[in-house]
Amino acid sequence: MQGVLDVPPDVLPVAALLTRQLLRVEEVFDQQLASDLPPVASLVKHVENYRGKMLRPSLVIAVGLATHPQIAQTPVADYEKLITRDHLVMGAVVEMVHMATLVHDDVLDDAETRRRGLTVNKLRGNEAAVILGDYLIASAYHLCSTLSTNDAALAVGRASMVTCAGELLQLHHRDDFSLDEPTYYEIVARKTAELIATAAELGCIASGSDPQTRSALARFGRCLGVAFQVQDDILDLTGKESVVGKSVQKDMEKGKMTLPVIHHLAHASPKDRGRTLNLLEQASGDQLHAAQRDLVRALEQTDSFTAARTGAATFITHAKRELAMLPQTPARTLLQVMAESVLTRAF
Amino acid sequence: MQGVLDVPPDVLPVAALLTRQLLRVEEVFDQQLASDLPPVASLVKHVENYRGKMLRPSLVIAVGLATHPQIAQTPVADYEKLITRDHLVMGAVVEMVHMATLVHDDVLDDAETRRRGLTVNKLRGNEAAVILGDYLIASAYHLCSTLSTNDAALAVGRASMVTCAGELLQLHHRDDFSLDEPTYYEIVARKTAELIATAAELGCIASGSDPQTRSALARFGRCLGVAFQVQDDILDLTGKESVVGKSVQKDMEKGKMTLPVIHHLAHASPKDRGRTLNLLEQASGDQLHAAQRDLVRALEQTDSFTAARTGAATFITHAKRELAMLPQTPARTLLQVMAESVLTRAF
Repeated sequence: MQGVLDVPPDVLPVAALLTRQLLRVEEVFDQQLASDLPPVASLVKHVENYRGKMLRPSLVIAVGLATHPQIAQTPVADYEKLITRDHLVMGAVVEMVHMATLVHDDVLDDAETRRRGLTVNKLRGNEAAVILGDYLIASAYHLCSTLSTNDAALAVGRASMVTCAGELLQLHHRDDFSLDEPTYYEIVARKTAELIATAAELGCIASGSDPQTRSALARFGRCLGVAFQVQDDILDLTGKESVVGKSVQKDMEKGKMTLPVIHHLAHASPKDRGRTLNLLEQASGDQLHAAQRDLVRALEQTDSFTAARTGAATFITHAKRELAMLPQTPARTLLQVMAESVLTRAF
Repeated sequence: MQGVLDVPPDVLPVAALLTRQLLRVEEVFDQQLASDLPPVASLVKHVENYRGKMLRPSLVIAVGLATHPQIAQTPVADYEKLITRDHLVMGAVVEMVHMATLVHDDVLDDAETRRRGLTVNKLRGNEAAVILGDYLIASAYHLCSTLSTNDAALAVGRASMVTCAGELLQLHHRDDFSLDEPTYYEIVARKTAELIATAAELGCIASGSDPQTRSALARFGRCLGVAFQVQDDILDLTGKESVVGKSVQKDMEKGKMTLPVIHHLAHASPKDRGRTLNLLEQASGDQLHAAQRDLVRALEQTDSFTAARTGAATFITHAKRELAMLPQTPARTLLQVMAESVLTRAF
């Protein structure tokens, strides 16, 4: 497991706590997916290798701490006592839902690598990947139903509906080169940010935080989620597969409009705009790599990566502003650090 | 909507009640899936055409009545008062989960028709179909979380896990022509019977029936579910697409071993067995139709359809035996009629 964080010294004990708790989340995750049927067990084993940044369970734990009604009166050494089984279960649930979307996305994108390994669809076929994704979703909901109240299940169910709606909206706009920024953000808010916002909300639910805090942290998560997707767009265009750890250069091939491209088309000269549209239309098969290289060069000329990075940074500024209502604790600082790391991540 | 039932006169009022309640289930179903995003709404609209026998919600309602603690003291004219919103919600939930599996199965089977119309995958592509299935599952769980207790959510979550495990097991045995009856029944118990058993259990949960009743009705549903799948196997081989309403002759093409074929291979002479194995191995592309016709003829020579029908009938006998513990009411008779109709259905 690899952390999302570069952590300053004063937050170190909370970050270490987070790492320990994520190991417990993994245990809950693995127990829930265990199967005595060998064909199921071997597929589940493969999915365990997909585990990456664990951003969503990290948010459940860190938000759970930072918004806990007792956090201001608790010495850092006792933070761990504030984490209950509910936090761990909700962390495992949201990661399982996320992993189901990864498995199905890889089928949709025909992706070959994920977390530096082959995808389930490449290794075992699309059919196994579709059913495995369904198994993960079912397992997530079943686990969620073991909680004493249905608040978390309602939030997760709603977020999953919104995520799918966002993906359908994205599919509807495939190869729509006239897609504008507002529509782009509408898609991203649904397909990526909603589940991340819900992870933050789950931390509040598990800690019994008050409704205003829950709303503020949902907004925090939503802003962070949008920034996260913008960074993903940039990495798909500029990242190396060996560093990013998953198939890159998929957005262009799949006709997905991303923020740098939208910015470029809005700011390029008519001639350059025409040339880029040509590149986007021809992006398939053998010419893909060359087209991709030309596209990156074109985007650089209109400073479109910088513009996208600035866009993401604005969302992170908004996200951090939502934290001001929380008591000033190392747990809150950890959330700030997590938010900032979204802008610098290379994987 | 088309009923599963040919109803004798004395059960007529209960069957009429069931039809009315199924309309209310449909309302709950449609309300839950409503979306103000046009690309989502148009796909959901298409799925509404998939509605067929409504076997699972019918079980929720009919079992809910037959196992209701007050049923014996309630005149038939007042049966309707025993049906609560919980019954309708659970009926809609289990149908939504089922429909999600249909949408994903059609992707896996590359099926072209369903309920006499084109499948989502044929009409809108595999990507839309995968995401739409996910949207249906998420909507089902979200709806289930609106219930006051989590009993139903736990049952539905567990059943969905078992269903997926059954499908993975089936995929693992694709083209395994040595598959035996016990393994066949192991697959069917999971991939088909579990959700039908859960539909029966949901009826008990919604009516607050006692635990023994719930266990008996789960066994009723499980037996009924196995018989249902065997009949499905037979229809895939012998049914006409125009009557069955969905793509037929898919099992052979997809290397799925079915009960009539397993029986045939166990009872044919070595020479005939060899010939049939040849047919099964060559079942692809242009030769599929001819191979299918030869296969049906071979299965008839070993009386394998009759054997499969007898197998299904035995499960229905077991199913009906479980009903003996219920008070003798027209609601119980309705369940018997439903069980018998599984053996005679042609669609």
